[in-house]
Amino acid sequence: MDSEQFRECAKATIEMLIDYYENIRNRNVLPSVEPGYLLKLLPENAPEEPEDWKTVLNDFSEKIMPGVTHWNSPHFHAYYPTGCSYPSIIGNILSDGLGIIGLTWMASPACTELEVVTMNWFGKLLGLPEVFLNCSDGPGGGVIQGSASEATLVALLAAKDKMIRRLTQINPSLDHDTMKNKFVAYTSDQCNSSVEKAGVLGSMKMRLLKSDPNGKLRGETLKKAFEEDKAQGLIPCYVVANLGTTGTCAFDPLYELGPVCNEENVWLHVDAAYAGAAFICPEYRHLMKGVEYADSFDVNVHKWLLVNFDCSAMWVKDCYDLIYAFDVQRIYLDDVNTTIKIPDYRHWQMPLGRRFRSLKLWTVMKMYGADGLRKHIRDQISLAQYFANLVSSDDRFIVEPEPAMGLVCFRLKDGDQNTKKLLQNLIEKKVLFMVACTYRSRFVIRYVITSRLTTKEDIETSWSIIKDETNLLINPDKINSNTKSISAIDHLNGISICEKSK
Amino acid sequence: MDSEQFRECAKATIEMLIDYYENIRNRNVLPSVEPGYLLKLLPENAPEEPEDWKTVLNDFSEKIMPGVTHWNSPHFHAYYPTGCSYPSIIGNILSDGLGIIGLTWMASPACTELEVVTMNWFGKLLGLPEVFLNCSDGPGGGVIQGSASEATLVALLAAKDKMIRRLTQINPSLDHDTMKNKFVAYTSDQCNSSVEKAGVLGSMKMRLLKSDPNGKLRGETLKKAFEEDKAQGLIPCYVVANLGTTGTCAFDPLYELGPVCNEENVWLHVDAAYAGAAFICPEYRHLMKGVEYADSFDVNVHKWLLVNFDCSAMWVKDCYDLIYAFDVQRIYLDDVNTTIKIPDYRHWQMPLGRRFRSLKLWTVMKMYGADGLRKHIRDQISLAQYFANLVSSDDRFIVEPEPAMGLVCFRLKDGDQNTKKLLQNLIEKKVLFMVACTYRSRFVIRYVITSRLTTKEDIETSWSIIKDETNLLINPDKINSNTKSISAIDHLNGISICEKSK
Repeated sequence: MDSEQFRECAKATIEMLIDYYENIRNRNVLPSVEPGYLLKLLPENAPEEPEDWKTVLNDFSEKIMPGVTHWNSPHFHAYYPTGCSYPSIIGNILSDGLGIIGLTWMASPACTELEVVTMNWFGKLLGLPEVFLNCSDGPGGGVIQGSASEATLVALLAAKDKMIRRLTQINPSLDHDTMKNKFVAYTSDQCNSSVEKAGVLGSMKMRLLKSDPNGKLRGETLKKAFEEDKAQGLIPCYVVANLGTTGTCAFDPLYELGPVCNEENVWLHVDAAYAGAAFICPEYRHLMKGVEYADSFDVNVHKWLLVNFDCSAMWVKDCYDLIYAFDVQRIYLDDVNTTIKIPDYRHWQMPLGRRFRSLKLWTVMKMYGADGLRKHIRDQISLAQYFANLVSSDDRFIVEPEPAMGLVCFRLKDGDQNTKKLLQNLIEKKVLFMVACTYRSRFVIRYVITSRLTTKEDIETSWSIIKDETNLLINPDKINSNTKSISAIDHLNGISICEKSK
Repeated sequence: MDSEQFRECAKATIEMLIDYYENIRNRNVLPSVEPGYLLKLLPENAPEEPEDWKTVLNDFSEKIMPGVTHWNSPHFHAYYPTGCSYPSIIGNILSDGLGIIGLTWMASPACTELEVVTMNWFGKLLGLPEVFLNCSDGPGGGVIQGSASEATLVALLAAKDKMIRRLTQINPSLDHDTMKNKFVAYTSDQCNSSVEKAGVLGSMKMRLLKSDPNGKLRGETLKKAFEEDKAQGLIPCYVVANLGTTGTCAFDPLYELGPVCNEENVWLHVDAAYAGAAFICPEYRHLMKGVEYADSFDVNVHKWLLVNFDCSAMWVKDCYDLIYAFDVQRIYLDDVNTTIKIPDYRHWQMPLGRRFRSLKLWTVMKMYGADGLRKHIRDQISLAQYFANLVSSDDRFIVEPEPAMGLVCFRLKDGDQNTKKLLQNLIEKKVLFMVACTYRSRFVIRYVITSRLTTKEDIETSWSIIKDETNLLINPDKINSNTKSISAIDHLNGISICEKSK
């Protein structure tokens, strides 16, 4: 593909995307394909000869597109949002165009330094304590990880290493392996599955502690768990607090958990993957009260802040905790200053290679402006409120718990069975996509505002579709005989994001 | 940014990239900036108001670009290549445009299925045994990981889990923690630092075994290490073989290592991050003789095969080894068939989220064709040969070891001190970029063909620059008084990729 072909192909691709977003409401949010559809459509071998770009774009439209679930459709209300915006796409074209790997500062100075700058910008926008920022005097700083899963695991491994160093300092004769086997991690039973997975991957026993009736992990519960474990000779090592749980967007009280952790020298990691984005609006910062107790803090900019996956913003109070855990080279004392202020980011993460990911964070912050990003968050929260009001006004429904951020959980008063059937029937129609979770042992439907394109009219459309299906369901005579009752429930099991809540 | 602004901005961005590549020879490959340059240039806070896209692109050109090391310049000969091509950029624009997350099949069927298809295509192109492919009858299959680092760690964790299952089956009363502490991993002293890091991250003792004089880890050495460790009550668990070491591109003999591993039920992972790409040309497949003994195999398509980072192609013989190790949900037996042939890829990797990465692999394979990709590899190898011949024809130099793939290692006969100085002086000029490694205790300069744009004329230019600098160096009267002697050597320490070789 020469420059001229690239020019034409890129132009056609951009037009295709513009058309996609301008007409996205004409598409069902869920595809109508069966497992294996694409395996049947595509040849068994790569082509020997190059194909013309027009053929490739055509195959994309005709074969790939029908199997796409439209995460950025205004009618996608499942999981949590995944960022996508024109400025972010521009940032990534620039990043791909340069095609550099930021192994070290010298491997591309701009890659390291723009990450420092944008993580400072973003940390300040969130109102994080200065101690977490690279621009403070101390050893704190921000780094872009690939995902919240990765950040949780990175923090767990750093916590493990730090605890070993601390205990060895107290008693140099202790055996590392024996110590490690005694380490325990804690989180709430509302945690995302990736938190539990971090325990599996990082070889640390992970206790999922019982949350209170509002889905919050309380300080007393954590304290009691520490005491139980210590009495058994175990060593509390790592705690993951959730700011905005995956199921119901509950906020663990950091001001309760923090002091308990600090007293025992236990690492406190804050997983604010989705809801953390809202702290760019000062009116929500009370929900992170106590953040100063944390050792690390993570927000997925690629969820709610219009930056494309992957861009998970992680801050640590002391970057040396990462460097000691991950550096497989010798640390030269001469480099101390450079290491802190112009970091060698490969020692702050698990893989060696790293893309120029800060470019998309930079283009989004510049082209939206802080004000534009705050407006985006506030608009989405107010759309969720609007939807909650519509549901509440129908006395067949209960909205529970209180809507939080862009999430509204609701159920039929009529019982779990019907709520399940309602969700199943809605998914079968493929025009709305929501998933379920459990709240106080009840089956509830989660409706999340995800797309930057969603308007009040889209919400009204959603609500009208939900009402229609409810009418059919509650008045059994009218139930459409096509309604299937098995396969969709199976799907629901597969797609429920709240698999761990009890 | 509305559609019209996006159209214009994307067009300008594409033109900027085309111009970048058409005139890349006018730029120094290394930037002339000091640490902290960008921190000084950019404001301390994100802008409050949105900025016009023209301002943003202008800032990119004026502020970011001067701090970029040009990895895709025809004069970049450091490390190994990082993929970048127009078809790959198109694939990523499509992926970013859709902005989907392939959590499960239903979260976007096309995302899962195109990965299956392209990994089958690519596995066949490489001539991998069928047992590794999803299209075989068995439980083998391919998955795209983020990096070779990640693949090495994924395989290590799976190996650990598998060994625990095996030993527990033999003796159910064994304590898991006690077992784990006895596990040992092995690789050669020529391994990439990421292999050693996998041991650190995965909490497994990693022995770097002495390679033979040609940089290969031999079967006898491995066997002896197993025996030593078993005699001490330790349990050999995981071996990483290198096909194309980072320093000198040496190939460990799989046909020697494989039987040793298989006999002891030790997981054999093949790290063919760079050189594995060459197996698309049948004439190089003899270098992976014995691959049928391996449990997992990884090639970074994003290195030498024109796909942008991140796209690391990993195959396993038995996908259940990954699923058992990484799944934090219950595995329903009913799903067994779906799980193998239409995989739930989140259980094949560490993070939960995943981008639509197969799109760029697909656009590259289609727009180049298998034939185009083979031509790319062969052209690059023949350019390396051309350079090696030029160097060999100058009797002040020794080319050693034999050039392999796109890598030529050379040194001055005059001694390590002068070779070091030569590299240092060349780097100071910023027009060529190479890094060093150690071969048989000698300091050698690595010259790698990386850019898809490199031509014979570029090689001649390189050689002429190297010769000129050598003339100045070997004839001390002519040494330029500006030649610095300290800071660059410090940089060299920082950039040597062969930090682990002894």
